[in-house]
Amino acid sequence: MALAFQKDAAVEVRLWARRQEAVEEARALRVADVASTNLSEVVSGSDTVVLCVPVGAMEGLVQQILPHLLADALVTDVGSVKGNVCQTLEPLLKGRAHFIGSHPMAGSEKAGISAARPDLFAGAVCIITPEVGKTSVVAVERAKALWEQLGCRVRSLEPSVHDEVCALISHLPHVCAAALVNSVQTALPGALDFCGNGFRDSTRIAGGLPSMWSEILLSNGAAVAKSLRLFISILEQTATQLEVQGTTAQSEIHRFLESAKTSRDALHGCSG
Amino acid sequence: MALAFQKDAAVEVRLWARRQEAVEEARALRVADVASTNLSEVVSGSDTVVLCVPVGAMEGLVQQILPHLLADALVTDVGSVKGNVCQTLEPLLKGRAHFIGSHPMAGSEKAGISAARPDLFAGAVCIITPEVGKTSVVAVERAKALWEQLGCRVRSLEPSVHDEVCALISHLPHVCAAALVNSVQTALPGALDFCGNGFRDSTRIAGGLPSMWSEILLSNGAAVAKSLRLFISILEQTATQLEVQGTTAQSEIHRFLESAKTSRDALHGCSG
Repeated sequence: MALAFQKDAAVEVRLWARRQEAVEEARALRVADVASTNLSEVVSGSDTVVLCVPVGAMEGLVQQILPHLLADALVTDVGSVKGNVCQTLEPLLKGRAHFIGSHPMAGSEKAGISAARPDLFAGAVCIITPEVGKTSVVAVERAKALWEQLGCRVRSLEPSVHDEVCALISHLPHVCAAALVNSVQTALPGALDFCGNGFRDSTRIAGGLPSMWSEILLSNGAAVAKSLRLFISILEQTATQLEVQGTTAQSEIHRFLESAKTSRDALHGCSG
Repeated sequence: MALAFQKDAAVEVRLWARRQEAVEEARALRVADVASTNLSEVVSGSDTVVLCVPVGAMEGLVQQILPHLLADALVTDVGSVKGNVCQTLEPLLKGRAHFIGSHPMAGSEKAGISAARPDLFAGAVCIITPEVGKTSVVAVERAKALWEQLGCRVRSLEPSVHDEVCALISHLPHVCAAALVNSVQTALPGALDFCGNGFRDSTRIAGGLPSMWSEILLSNGAAVAKSLRLFISILEQTATQLEVQGTTAQSEIHRFLESAKTSRDALHGCSG
């Protein structure tokens, strides 16, 4: 975000980081106008504050920035789980700033400032999660403008619906990628030497940070477990068909693959 | 393969296709010196014959080319399953040509000549599957040279070991990608509109041809089902931990993700 906004001379970008080394790196790479470990220096006078820390660290961080917030500041976050986060942050920020949850569906398995790309958000979906009777119109409009300026296609979902959606399209695939790698490692570790692009792409997200992802999965535990149980039941049908063989199994497996191909081919931006 | 070999003036590339339209396309795109639906025209006099048809079509094709084969021709295939294929083709070609199975671990979910890339094989692993007491040294050496000329890293495996390896690193991920798409389609089809790069990469291979892939999965049914059962048991552990929550679940999920990351980061050519 910092890199992308650095292109716009009208925007002053201030970056806070917990570690001095990250601040030094941000300065060396010129990703912000100000980079500091001092929260007050970064937050004071800022009209927009974006919380980019693991979901479990959001509450403590907001407690610390409260004294420095402008009364009409927009506060949003980029956490991958929204139910817990919004439930925690909304009451804390009520009457102190305009709060709304955000989740840009962009990123990579890489971490750190050196992995940043200014075009990361171009064309990506960003979900914002306004709550009826709680989120101000100002927060919705300003968050929408913020993400659109980065090239995102902005969509709105209730926090709980967001969490169901992300359990299916992000958290389930993450568990799945990790379980694929661990299955090979358990059954025949040497097989990893033979992998092609299919395995590489299917498991890319398993390279994500375990500390961040275990927190995400547990914060959205009920929805992820529900998605996993459905996924498992679908896999069990396929396993049984492969064991049984015969013409019924043939047509069932063909139907299973055809239905997946139809949905996959229809994905936005996935035709190629 | 045709495109890649077209770069080498010393190699005459002849392409056979079942459909006249595919032949016209190959001619228009100049991917071969000769393109024809006439098997005899393509096979007669060729010193190397590569069978690039679905695994279920191999036997019939070999029956048809037998009368046209040079006595010292190398015959190999690019099928994704090797146990069945080698068991069927080896006796047919015994004393008629040098046969060995091949499986280049490269490709994409796309089909047709227009999706061909001359650099597809550069850096990819190609598994050849010699059988003790059956495969000639000539076949091994010539197949190795063939794939190395395309830039492959050639490895040898017994056909049955190949099938176990591919069940884990190729066929299981394929079922998994299709089941991911079908899970979302079953639970909340609208969620597909929100997908990011993670879901896109995790499910890319689900765009593969259902007819080809159902044949592959069923031909390697026992090994794929065994991999699926292991995969399911690993997913069940994670689902239970997410349902139970608590500190043990936290550390188990962290360990699960960390172990996957360690193996994934160590994959050849996957560090980036």
